[in-house]
Amino acid sequence: MYHAPISDMLFVMKELAGLDEVAALPGYEDATPETAQAVLEEASKLCGEVLAPLNVEGDRNPSRWENGSVFATPGFADAFRQFSEGGWQGVQHPPEYEGQGLPKLVATPCVEMLNAANLSFALCPLLTDGAIEALLTAGSEEQKQRYVPKLISGEWTGTMNLTEPQAGSDLAMVRTRAEPQGDGTYRLFGTKIFITWGEHDMAKNIVHLVLARTPSAPEGVKGISLFVVPKFVVNDDGSLGERNDVHCVSIEHKLGIKASPTAVLQFGDHGGAIGHLIGDENRGLEYMFIMMNAARFAVGMQGVAVSDRAYQKAVAYAKERVQSRPVDGSTKEAATIIHHPDVRRMLATMRALTEASRALAYVAAAQSDIAHRHPDEATRARHQARYEFFVPVVKGWSTELSIDVASLGVQVHGGMGFIEETGAAQFYRDARILPIYEGTTAIQANDLIGRKTLRDGGAVAKALIGEIGDTIDALDAHDGAAFASMRTHLARGRDAFASAVDYVLANAKRDPNAVFAGSVPYLKLAGIVLGGWQMARALLAAQRLKADDPKFYGAKIATAQFFAEHLLPQAVAFEAAIVSANGSEGVLALSEDQF
Amino acid sequence: MYHAPISDMLFVMKELAGLDEVAALPGYEDATPETAQAVLEEASKLCGEVLAPLNVEGDRNPSRWENGSVFATPGFADAFRQFSEGGWQGVQHPPEYEGQGLPKLVATPCVEMLNAANLSFALCPLLTDGAIEALLTAGSEEQKQRYVPKLISGEWTGTMNLTEPQAGSDLAMVRTRAEPQGDGTYRLFGTKIFITWGEHDMAKNIVHLVLARTPSAPEGVKGISLFVVPKFVVNDDGSLGERNDVHCVSIEHKLGIKASPTAVLQFGDHGGAIGHLIGDENRGLEYMFIMMNAARFAVGMQGVAVSDRAYQKAVAYAKERVQSRPVDGSTKEAATIIHHPDVRRMLATMRALTEASRALAYVAAAQSDIAHRHPDEATRARHQARYEFFVPVVKGWSTELSIDVASLGVQVHGGMGFIEETGAAQFYRDARILPIYEGTTAIQANDLIGRKTLRDGGAVAKALIGEIGDTIDALDAHDGAAFASMRTHLARGRDAFASAVDYVLANAKRDPNAVFAGSVPYLKLAGIVLGGWQMARALLAAQRLKADDPKFYGAKIATAQFFAEHLLPQAVAFEAAIVSANGSEGVLALSEDQF
Repeated sequence: MYHAPISDMLFVMKELAGLDEVAALPGYEDATPETAQAVLEEASKLCGEVLAPLNVEGDRNPSRWENGSVFATPGFADAFRQFSEGGWQGVQHPPEYEGQGLPKLVATPCVEMLNAANLSFALCPLLTDGAIEALLTAGSEEQKQRYVPKLISGEWTGTMNLTEPQAGSDLAMVRTRAEPQGDGTYRLFGTKIFITWGEHDMAKNIVHLVLARTPSAPEGVKGISLFVVPKFVVNDDGSLGERNDVHCVSIEHKLGIKASPTAVLQFGDHGGAIGHLIGDENRGLEYMFIMMNAARFAVGMQGVAVSDRAYQKAVAYAKERVQSRPVDGSTKEAATIIHHPDVRRMLATMRALTEASRALAYVAAAQSDIAHRHPDEATRARHQARYEFFVPVVKGWSTELSIDVASLGVQVHGGMGFIEETGAAQFYRDARILPIYEGTTAIQANDLIGRKTLRDGGAVAKALIGEIGDTIDALDAHDGAAFASMRTHLARGRDAFASAVDYVLANAKRDPNAVFAGSVPYLKLAGIVLGGWQMARALLAAQRLKADDPKFYGAKIATAQFFAEHLLPQAVAFEAAIVSANGSEGVLALSEDQF
Repeated sequence: MYHAPISDMLFVMKELAGLDEVAALPGYEDATPETAQAVLEEASKLCGEVLAPLNVEGDRNPSRWENGSVFATPGFADAFRQFSEGGWQGVQHPPEYEGQGLPKLVATPCVEMLNAANLSFALCPLLTDGAIEALLTAGSEEQKQRYVPKLISGEWTGTMNLTEPQAGSDLAMVRTRAEPQGDGTYRLFGTKIFITWGEHDMAKNIVHLVLARTPSAPEGVKGISLFVVPKFVVNDDGSLGERNDVHCVSIEHKLGIKASPTAVLQFGDHGGAIGHLIGDENRGLEYMFIMMNAARFAVGMQGVAVSDRAYQKAVAYAKERVQSRPVDGSTKEAATIIHHPDVRRMLATMRALTEASRALAYVAAAQSDIAHRHPDEATRARHQARYEFFVPVVKGWSTELSIDVASLGVQVHGGMGFIEETGAAQFYRDARILPIYEGTTAIQANDLIGRKTLRDGGAVAKALIGEIGDTIDALDAHDGAAFASMRTHLARGRDAFASAVDYVLANAKRDPNAVFAGSVPYLKLAGIVLGGWQMARALLAAQRLKADDPKFYGAKIATAQFFAEHLLPQAVAFEAAIVSANGSEGVLALSEDQF
């Protein structure tokens, strides 16, 4: 069972992310609160009724490889047809190519629902989104016309082909070759691994976007080009031609997301796979980064999504399972376990982390919308920089915490949580990939430090710290335990973050190992403080609106208080790991053979 | 591959846990460092050569149920024979019943090795240990003679039958009936679930210890008695008689520890299972607690063990996998990933947590030895109280952190970690049961607060806090970054723990919900501070011994520094969750329907 938390989503969209401001942008006039609500309700039906029930089935009956073909879990192809017919692939893509042209802020809750309902299924549209993004960014008009409408309609799907056996995070090592044929086409040769939905039977064609090197390419990342290599060659009239020389030689046996086939693709074993260059030669990495940024944000949403799904399941069990008398002696009878303080603490932790990571991600989505559509260039640039700062935090923090949330979900179930039939364990298994793919947490953390903090001299980070201060000032105007706790702990968190930013700026050149040994703590510190900041803003909004719906907004206030008291204090521990360690000694003191 | 870390184990035994002091106790004269080392080396051979290689096989080819019989993974029965023939079941049991009579401090590293090598396999001896413990504590001499030597020899194995479908953590709800037959025997009727190694083909008989109620028993936990119910009735001459009426109707399909069959046992479907009362009627829970304390400590060791195994695997991969250039630009070539600061941080975290949890457990084991054998009654009592304080911390903290360690182990492997064939994921799956069985972390935390902190007015806790202060004073005598960091963070941790103890003592009666809402943070705070204390003691010892082996002791110093800087700061965050929350408001504010 999955119920999309539409009220929570709309609360974040309207009160924290600025849906009104987004709807005022040119081209987004239709994104009124009413439209947004209608879109969310429609999405929730598909996700709750069609996709969520297939989630367990996909785990028990994963994608299957047979003689080079991959067969999706029974039911998936039909669900994909319904997804496509509903126009869901096109929500945030441009109307010129048959998309719906809605803002990212409205598309993001749809992405969350899709992933909460069925993480394995959702990966197929996620990768297709990435392919669309890359084609729109760097493709020729002819390429856009040829591929994008079919990707949006769901007739075809897309993939991203980066990783090779010797080149995981390090794309400089890519060895796949692309040989020009003199007719504008190329022939590709090589092996790509970890290709999500790299082969399947849900669509008529699969559009592989592939990183490869041309013969004259310089070494390293500056010699990588991006190619489009369809499973079936596309004729000029758009019809499908011959089977291309790209073949799925196996799929992986994984810990989780078992329904999504993870393919090993072999290019060119039978003469060469026909490919077309996208954009300019040797600029592949740059294009890939555009689609990776979109995909990284989407993987962050997967973290939010699996957290919410695990939370919903744990709450349902805690309300139903009767065990032991309450510790306060309030009844002589055994009670449902939601009455036990530690079960409450676990559920509150799951809820608070889910809400904070959702808020941070939606706020980031709105930055992206402003960055794309605002008429003022300086405003666009400012919001683009802020969005880019948020992306690694959304990706890294939301996915790391999703493991903790899913693990707590198992714990709430007690012994039953360890039994596969219960279903809680699937989230724990599925979530484990999220901090790895589309760039591990360390990669995100390096990005946050290198490109997002150092490059602008900490300008974005400091601007955010200033705004957190404004929120702390606003909290001062209110009484009560929730406000007092939030004020105290958000101020401490802000100070911790500020001190870490200063440390990074001061030491990155002098002692890079020291700074990068604290990079993941720095990312998690940013997450907990920026997430806590959103919870503080939610607290202020809920206080203002409380009379409208005391139950709903009362829960927002209590959740913000819990976040302040139980979770924000982590900030001080992360700061210590970065700053007071003051050097890499503790981390790097051991020689290799001392491990 | 598993290499028992014998040097690390001996360091903890000798320098932290006081092996000399234990070997000076009456009856433990043989437990010299030389004997201990010989025992550990022998154990490491069996574990490394026989049991460790079967670990993956058990995961891929789990125990199998067929028509009421359970067949262990191929190879397990032979390994069990070797384990039994080596005398390993009897290491810590009395020579009167064919045991080796070694101290718990020497048995504990053997238990660690066994579990590190093969968690599923090790559960069978673990449960047999519990059954032996219960029989020795409460059985008649005739029962001891009848069962214990055969359990020690491995001819038979033992189980603990507590849980029923309606009675998980809450044993007051046990419904299994035991009807006296007038001849001294009873007939048992009922269903028990989650019975580890409750049925299998590795031994000739299985000795089930079963909680049940006699007809006249009072309600609740005061009406539970303990029975011995062998799978095959044991004749007076010790030979096996008829098949008893206890049958395995199914085994569970689990997230991990798949080789260990988790049985549903049906008692009395065909006339009643013949059982014998152990000790007095209605004192079953008391006896069960004795064997549960032993089992809880052992499960804590499982946490240490799986952490170490996951660490060893991650180190091996990090030394082998080449990926990306070092961030400090020290080489132009891609390096093995152990050169990357964040991989170092992950490995150091895994290592530091493993070493701290090992040290805490071994120190606890020595307390148990002194409590059993010291000639002075007051000394025995003091160490017994301290051991009992440590048990829930060892169980709760070591198992919770084993999930984090196993999860980091997957992360170090990157995408390969998510592929089941790599093997890192098995530890992540296996570890997940540890904070659940033998009492969830919440149950341990309630025990730590209720029986171990409140009952003696905080006497043990405060004595420990005083001793931590002595260690901090000893650190003062040394210079250098490791000592400075440890002094700062251990003092902060000690203060945080002291403040939490005061809070618990002051508020448990007035506001039990508030105190118990912070019970798990309290347990984790105790774990990180007591673990950090052991790391500080290790630092002092390593400094003293450094000249003997600079590489080995240098690593101890670096690991202690890392623990101080990166992990001890968590203490302050836990304190905030307990103390500065000051009340249950944040945790318990929501009504049930607000979730």
